[in-house]
Amino acid sequence: MLLMEEAKKKKCFVRFEPSGLTAEVPAGTVLLEAARKVGVYLTSICGGDGYCGKCKLIIDEGQTQSRPTTLLTPEEIRENVVLACQTKVLSDLVVTVPKSHTLETSQILMDSDMRRFSELAGEAPEGVFEFDPLVRKLHVKMSPPTVRDNTADHERLYLAIREQIEAPIMQTGFRIIQKLSRILHEHKYEVAVTVGRRGGTTEVIDIEQAGRVRTNYAVAVDLGTTTVVAHLVDLTTAVTKDSEATYNSQIHFGEDYIRRIIYAEQNDAFDEMQSRIVGDVNNLIVTLASRQRIEVQDITTIVCAGNTAMAHFLLNLDPTQIRREPYVASAGFVPPIRAAEAGIQINKRGLLYCLPAVAAYIGSDIVAGVLSTRLHTKEGISVFADIGTNGEVVLGNKDWLVCASSSAGPAFEGSGVKHGMRAGAGAIEKVKILADGSVDFRTIADTRPAGICGSGLLDILAELFVNNIMDRTGRLIADSNPRISEGEEGMQFRLTLPEDGYKEIVITQADIDNLIRSKAGVFAAIRVLMEATQTKPEDLDAVYLAGGFGNFLNTRQAVTVGMLPDVALEKIHFVGNTSIAGAKTVLLAHKAMETAERIADSMTYFDLMSHPRYMDEFIRAKFLPHTDLSLFPSVRSVRTNAKRL
Amino acid sequence: MLLMEEAKKKKCFVRFEPSGLTAEVPAGTVLLEAARKVGVYLTSICGGDGYCGKCKLIIDEGQTQSRPTTLLTPEEIRENVVLACQTKVLSDLVVTVPKSHTLETSQILMDSDMRRFSELAGEAPEGVFEFDPLVRKLHVKMSPPTVRDNTADHERLYLAIREQIEAPIMQTGFRIIQKLSRILHEHKYEVAVTVGRRGGTTEVIDIEQAGRVRTNYAVAVDLGTTTVVAHLVDLTTAVTKDSEATYNSQIHFGEDYIRRIIYAEQNDAFDEMQSRIVGDVNNLIVTLASRQRIEVQDITTIVCAGNTAMAHFLLNLDPTQIRREPYVASAGFVPPIRAAEAGIQINKRGLLYCLPAVAAYIGSDIVAGVLSTRLHTKEGISVFADIGTNGEVVLGNKDWLVCASSSAGPAFEGSGVKHGMRAGAGAIEKVKILADGSVDFRTIADTRPAGICGSGLLDILAELFVNNIMDRTGRLIADSNPRISEGEEGMQFRLTLPEDGYKEIVITQADIDNLIRSKAGVFAAIRVLMEATQTKPEDLDAVYLAGGFGNFLNTRQAVTVGMLPDVALEKIHFVGNTSIAGAKTVLLAHKAMETAERIADSMTYFDLMSHPRYMDEFIRAKFLPHTDLSLFPSVRSVRTNAKRL
Repeated sequence: MLLMEEAKKKKCFVRFEPSGLTAEVPAGTVLLEAARKVGVYLTSICGGDGYCGKCKLIIDEGQTQSRPTTLLTPEEIRENVVLACQTKVLSDLVVTVPKSHTLETSQILMDSDMRRFSELAGEAPEGVFEFDPLVRKLHVKMSPPTVRDNTADHERLYLAIREQIEAPIMQTGFRIIQKLSRILHEHKYEVAVTVGRRGGTTEVIDIEQAGRVRTNYAVAVDLGTTTVVAHLVDLTTAVTKDSEATYNSQIHFGEDYIRRIIYAEQNDAFDEMQSRIVGDVNNLIVTLASRQRIEVQDITTIVCAGNTAMAHFLLNLDPTQIRREPYVASAGFVPPIRAAEAGIQINKRGLLYCLPAVAAYIGSDIVAGVLSTRLHTKEGISVFADIGTNGEVVLGNKDWLVCASSSAGPAFEGSGVKHGMRAGAGAIEKVKILADGSVDFRTIADTRPAGICGSGLLDILAELFVNNIMDRTGRLIADSNPRISEGEEGMQFRLTLPEDGYKEIVITQADIDNLIRSKAGVFAAIRVLMEATQTKPEDLDAVYLAGGFGNFLNTRQAVTVGMLPDVALEKIHFVGNTSIAGAKTVLLAHKAMETAERIADSMTYFDLMSHPRYMDEFIRAKFLPHTDLSLFPSVRSVRTNAKRL
Repeated sequence: MLLMEEAKKKKCFVRFEPSGLTAEVPAGTVLLEAARKVGVYLTSICGGDGYCGKCKLIIDEGQTQSRPTTLLTPEEIRENVVLACQTKVLSDLVVTVPKSHTLETSQILMDSDMRRFSELAGEAPEGVFEFDPLVRKLHVKMSPPTVRDNTADHERLYLAIREQIEAPIMQTGFRIIQKLSRILHEHKYEVAVTVGRRGGTTEVIDIEQAGRVRTNYAVAVDLGTTTVVAHLVDLTTAVTKDSEATYNSQIHFGEDYIRRIIYAEQNDAFDEMQSRIVGDVNNLIVTLASRQRIEVQDITTIVCAGNTAMAHFLLNLDPTQIRREPYVASAGFVPPIRAAEAGIQINKRGLLYCLPAVAAYIGSDIVAGVLSTRLHTKEGISVFADIGTNGEVVLGNKDWLVCASSSAGPAFEGSGVKHGMRAGAGAIEKVKILADGSVDFRTIADTRPAGICGSGLLDILAELFVNNIMDRTGRLIADSNPRISEGEEGMQFRLTLPEDGYKEIVITQADIDNLIRSKAGVFAAIRVLMEATQTKPEDLDAVYLAGGFGNFLNTRQAVTVGMLPDVALEKIHFVGNTSIAGAKTVLLAHKAMETAERIADSMTYFDLMSHPRYMDEFIRAKFLPHTDLSLFPSVRSVRTNAKRL
């Protein structure tokens, strides 16, 4: 016994390859904990409970002790693969993090309109904003004081600023007023003044030598439950210079934010939750800044969009009422704060803005989505659906907006799917089942297939259906295709075959059930909103599908599986990450923040859980494409054509 | 030598009576420094240079070493009186601070209208403001959220606040938003909300249990160059509960603020200057709070008025350009800041407001004076003169305001006058020279005479003049009165006589010269402003005289000596400390701050030093009452009457 205690106290070094990050931990520490400690973020969806099987590591050297699991294949066990959450460190270790677990930054979705603002001039059409960033640097030249004109420096500066911008209410931090006179004298009343728009007022954030007027950067951030994405923007030219993404390291504490709120409540871990998400954001900022060779000090602005819980975690607002009836957020509209107050490492006087949220389950990412698709400006009615860890839906036009959130689950983000993964190198992003029953696929970066990302999963679901390998209830049909086999978890379809020299990647019956639940949740939400507003399918002018599916998505397939309403294909638009696109819009045009607030204010939220029609619609939508085939006239022909081949 | 060094290193304890405060200092320390160290504030006008002779102490026990001085009488030397700035500590000491050197707080001028606001109801006349403090506590009761009404807590609170007050732009500190949900839940959505008006916006400063709604106090402060005065106000009832004053402890560094700016520049002592004035204010706050048994935490507001330099010292703004052409302040309008940012010890989220200043030499005390005398609302033209360390003058009506500052010198505050003192117990406040040539006088608190305060000095000047003891040039006339004698410093008039059992109190020729310079400065400033605006004496509807003269002032005498224009006596009003009265007006009525800003903005400043007429007017005003007797028709009869008696 004594020896065992001794061993437990022993310090062990765990080196994680390929990053080389090394954790020093007491013997007996769980490997997932060791990884967390040094910032090696493993996909862990169940929060370390050992049932998601995502946190796989390869033990290269050293001794470990693992609990038995059914989530590893005999082959994996032979190759020393372990689940990090089920394995204890017994000695110094060298472990390898499989590549599919690290996010390939080069593949992160860039918004397609990064130059949207830089080319603007003159009158802007509805919903397009004048380039006028939230935080600007102004070149301010004042006439120095004389005996006849001895207005105090502070008021002289205000007068000069108001010659350039409209700023009826101005504020200046105490520390800036304190150094004001010295700087104005030193630079002969010609300076660069950083001004930020701050909820109806304009703040003088900093005063520097005039030469620094073009050194002004901002970061737009999408705070996803699974992934955090950041774009670096030059505020002088409006050009997006770079982007970067990382896993949300809160993922260790649970797959969805409800689980994380519960964890934080039970473990008094709100500070920990904040420091994780803030740490992720700071890592992104440092990476972007060092790659672009700019000083973090020169980033004056950060604008965040994300679901309501994530915004609460970021600011350490109390999120506990979000999960309890009547589901109330601490704040939907969060006023801009000094970024440093939240621990964000940009200019120490730089500002942190959060886009406004609508409700506990309709976050600012959805407001950003409306803003960037301009739903709120259109005559015709549009649908906006954002498929992430949840599936949020907005319906409306320039006169009204309604919204709802379905707990779709993160299947299309690759979670709860055996070989699901985020859109990174090696992810299967396109799938086609050929007439001979064989499978054609394409991976991101054309590398060896490592898993399946969202667009690939949608393709598979549609292809299995139209090729009659799966029936309308989502059951795989035995013997319908040579690739159907019986796996450890029941019936499965093999996308890749070891005999072709690939790692075997399959889609299981359980995966299909998860994907169908997701698509059914989204469609049911759309139906409830359409019925509540008496909107008919023919009334829809546009359908926008947003989310981290990958770079390209076959919108036809989204209709085929019954996720989106059956409208003319040209009306359906895959719009990618609209959360970050909306954040960037606000960043570059402060008037867009007011618009975002009007959008958030005017959206009517439908609580689906308490809605009498939702469960019925959900059950009907769990068929492919739907129980009511008259809702999907185009699907019949697709399927018939497939049969003919 | 070694022994001497040893002795110097020895620690000595210096106890100051009657306070009992004890300083521990190395042997060799100057007594003034020891006093400063423990917060014993001695009148020291020359800043320790040994020429003002004000910092007298009595050595009761122990050994000291003093430099020779001509400023002590042989009798004082016999009684162990020393000048603290010229005396070194050689051993443990017990010293007594003479009573005239400590401010008697009971005698501090209370403004006459402390209940001005509590009785207000309905429509307010021009220049009188609705009771609506800068910082209020609102009783806010919200309907708790339901599934149908699940507006976030932050927005719910804003809606509820806006039902009570007009607040188009609201802000809330990050720390308050963080605790918002918890507090609202804990108190079932019924709370006391502290809201502050902050430069066009309304800030939610704090949220507490509803029962604390009536616990809300404020402090109004007059930041004088010589004295700092504070009033404690109950913001629920608008009642002034108490007042307190202290010497400005910067006085060690110089009599006027120009000397102090020079000292701070030469010794890099800006932080020291700030910590002194802030320390004085904090001492006043603690004294008031403990005497009234309230928690410092419950003081949510502090409003300061004072000259521009003092406001800069308080906030540690750069004051160095104030003394250099073209005489520019860092800030005239200082935005409200968190009091804690300046080191002021009230509620840690409480706000510090400074009234706006006009120019480097027309501070917010003068704006406060205009605000409280309501010059800016009147049809007729008024003069406002504030006699302190400087003499500031305002002329104007509801349509225009002009102002100027004369470097009058602090003679009427008792500085530069041999037996001058602040208006405290024992100060001679009224003087009458009787027909038989003897002197009748009255002291504050009817105690034994210790010195002469402002109103007494004005009386003496007038009485000497009308009784022909002094000629029109201000020369004492030998043998004109038995009390004329030759003192150490030349001719003097003895107010009190040792043979009557009093300490001898005299007014010297040098004192008279100083007083005449002060009055001449003020009158010359009034004349320049009148001439510049083509205002004739008969156009004047009112003359307001403000300053720390004492409780009562014979306004007739101010005309007799030629300080104020010769208008009908009922038009002259002694208004006391209008700096604190104005600060209190703003405290109790936030709209008054906007008015103060309009006043400051609209005042035209005349720089007397560069004005071609000023020196000429000053020389003419150095006569009693003036070279041009036609300007003072009433004085002739006064003097004639006196002669007749």
